[in-house]
Amino acid sequence: MIPTFSSRINQEPTSLDALFALSDRADLISFAGGYPDPALFPKKELNNAFENRIKNASTEIFQYRSVLGYEPLRQKIADYAKTTGTTCSPENIMLTQGAQQGIKLLADLFLDDFDGVVVEAPTYVGGLEAFNEHKPTYYEVPMEDDGMNMDVLAETLEENDVKLIYTIPNFQNPTGYCMSVEKRKQLTELATKYNVIVIEDDPYRELRYVGSSLPSIKSFDLTENIVTLGSFSKILSPALRCGWLIGAKEIVNQLSSLRLSYDCQSSNILLEGIDEYLEHNDISTHITKLRTAYQQKMNAMLSGLSENLPVECSFSKPQGGFFIWVNLPKPLDARELLNKTKRVAFLEGSSLFATSREANHLRLNFTGITEKQIEEGCIDLGNTIKNALLALAI
Amino acid sequence: MIPTFSSRINQEPTSLDALFALSDRADLISFAGGYPDPALFPKKELNNAFENRIKNASTEIFQYRSVLGYEPLRQKIADYAKTTGTTCSPENIMLTQGAQQGIKLLADLFLDDFDGVVVEAPTYVGGLEAFNEHKPTYYEVPMEDDGMNMDVLAETLEENDVKLIYTIPNFQNPTGYCMSVEKRKQLTELATKYNVIVIEDDPYRELRYVGSSLPSIKSFDLTENIVTLGSFSKILSPALRCGWLIGAKEIVNQLSSLRLSYDCQSSNILLEGIDEYLEHNDISTHITKLRTAYQQKMNAMLSGLSENLPVECSFSKPQGGFFIWVNLPKPLDARELLNKTKRVAFLEGSSLFATSREANHLRLNFTGITEKQIEEGCIDLGNTIKNALLALAI
Repeated sequence: MIPTFSSRINQEPTSLDALFALSDRADLISFAGGYPDPALFPKKELNNAFENRIKNASTEIFQYRSVLGYEPLRQKIADYAKTTGTTCSPENIMLTQGAQQGIKLLADLFLDDFDGVVVEAPTYVGGLEAFNEHKPTYYEVPMEDDGMNMDVLAETLEENDVKLIYTIPNFQNPTGYCMSVEKRKQLTELATKYNVIVIEDDPYRELRYVGSSLPSIKSFDLTENIVTLGSFSKILSPALRCGWLIGAKEIVNQLSSLRLSYDCQSSNILLEGIDEYLEHNDISTHITKLRTAYQQKMNAMLSGLSENLPVECSFSKPQGGFFIWVNLPKPLDARELLNKTKRVAFLEGSSLFATSREANHLRLNFTGITEKQIEEGCIDLGNTIKNALLALAI
Repeated sequence: MIPTFSSRINQEPTSLDALFALSDRADLISFAGGYPDPALFPKKELNNAFENRIKNASTEIFQYRSVLGYEPLRQKIADYAKTTGTTCSPENIMLTQGAQQGIKLLADLFLDDFDGVVVEAPTYVGGLEAFNEHKPTYYEVPMEDDGMNMDVLAETLEENDVKLIYTIPNFQNPTGYCMSVEKRKQLTELATKYNVIVIEDDPYRELRYVGSSLPSIKSFDLTENIVTLGSFSKILSPALRCGWLIGAKEIVNQLSSLRLSYDCQSSNILLEGIDEYLEHNDISTHITKLRTAYQQKMNAMLSGLSENLPVECSFSKPQGGFFIWVNLPKPLDARELLNKTKRVAFLEGSSLFATSREANHLRLNFTGITEKQIEEGCIDLGNTIKNALLALAI
């Protein structure tokens, strides 16, 4: 008999489980994942980078290294951060095992049980999972197409003890919405006024297909309350397991101690491989290629949805990222819909709300599948919704 | 102003910090680290493995993969585990970001605040750091040269609520002691009787220089209470960041959910690279090379200590592993000694005791340095101790 698990452990399968499990099924068209297109990974360039770096490095490349991670790569990320308006040095940066680890580390660093946490409604399920272990008191702030509702946020902060705000400013997962510059400023002002930590989770920033880049939230940071997370997962490869965290030295130092008991450090082989890739390739050329390919897929999905969804549905028109958010007419339940689709899977939205669990939304991913699959999937999805509406009318 | 950290966070620098910081200093002979000898990393073979696997794999090698990790590698580990007496299948195995992540995941899975945790006295500081976040009620069981004292363990389990036992059976960090077969059996019987989870942390098993391998604790497992951790860090390279966890399916499944919010998964690139290495190289030949080299270093240190330490000191004579444990005469304080050494650094032992914090011990590592450094370091250490004893006598 296995001893009982901790009371903190949710023994129900999580939405992340469901997400990963769905993405592994080959028999269907999956709009459910959040995967990049494998055809776009720069395989040859990455292989060359690993080969050359290992060949030319001393055997120390295989040794334990610093907790923060390979310094020249942190310098490159600091240089990149400047282009987003964020001023920082390598000492402000920890290289993490994906951006997910950054969320987890910050949750563990700042949260005591039942602390107040503001999340967008809806939000990224991996954020919720990381916070859930601390049994937080959630406050949802509704998403709008220019970012979270600042009036609701201001009221929430005024009336409650909030420790942490979690936001995805660019092409939010799951809505695809992008926070306006004005709201970024307001958010930093509110975070300063109420002394709240802000996690600016920004893995999709470079995948903008329409319009111009906006400055990071951290670029308006007044009191070092903002911590920004980034990642190579969506712009190079998830298997590099390399994200970064940019924050005040005091925060980064404390996270270094914490991380030693988690997994010690990232793989120096991977970090040096990425560094070598960046030394010998123009990543912006690669990103331009991604933008072109993903914009085409997004447009295919937007057309497919326009053509096939009944008029009772609405959906987001993102300027970038991986996802489109579909709103069903209220009586429809996305979970029930998922059981009725013939060929298409999607992420039903209720688990993406911390508390309100709204049942009438779907998150659709367009990056990990082909345009043909997108077209066929949209037809199937449209038919399923139409049939469900007909059934309701009967 | 940065908001306050969680009350769970220890804001003092940890022993692991000190350990890693010391190991980075080039101006001294460091017996303090726990690093393998970089000259022994199979650089060419690993480079070939990465190059060939990436070249021959589809671009899916760069994609997200399963949380448990690359299945063929888990199969190889299952086959290896059989040689230690452990029967398991790939479904019982999760590939972790080093064995450290295994400790952390298990601590988080099983421990509620203030739960009882049995640790060896002394023990691995990374284990303590992982448990500390749950404010455990520690019970220390003294180490003997054939493993922890089973009478004390039995009494502890009879008299207290204990949730988890943490043990390093082979060439324990920090003492170098190895648990006898008889005690391994007793431990599983006690774990069954009192329904306690046992973490069998076993990263040094293959680095045996004297005598024959002993069966794993898990080989005597009666009720799936034992979870075994292993690692490629000490036998291939720490920068591969690849350990494994072998346990009941129920435990492994629950850890899969937990891990998604930690760092999603290990790097598939690294896992496939290791798999390729194992396909085309005989790792046992490599391990034989390591054993020969490390035995020579261990013998150099044992000789150096015999020749240079005053008779008031005693030290362990390990059959394998990375460490020798030195006991100073009681009035001496290892922390004070560390400030007095001229050229040699070591890990002072007090932080390696969960509660008793005994001050008169040192942990010495012999793998990460040269024989010449070992000889010179032992002379310096001997002189420092002799001078400290003289000062006491005055």
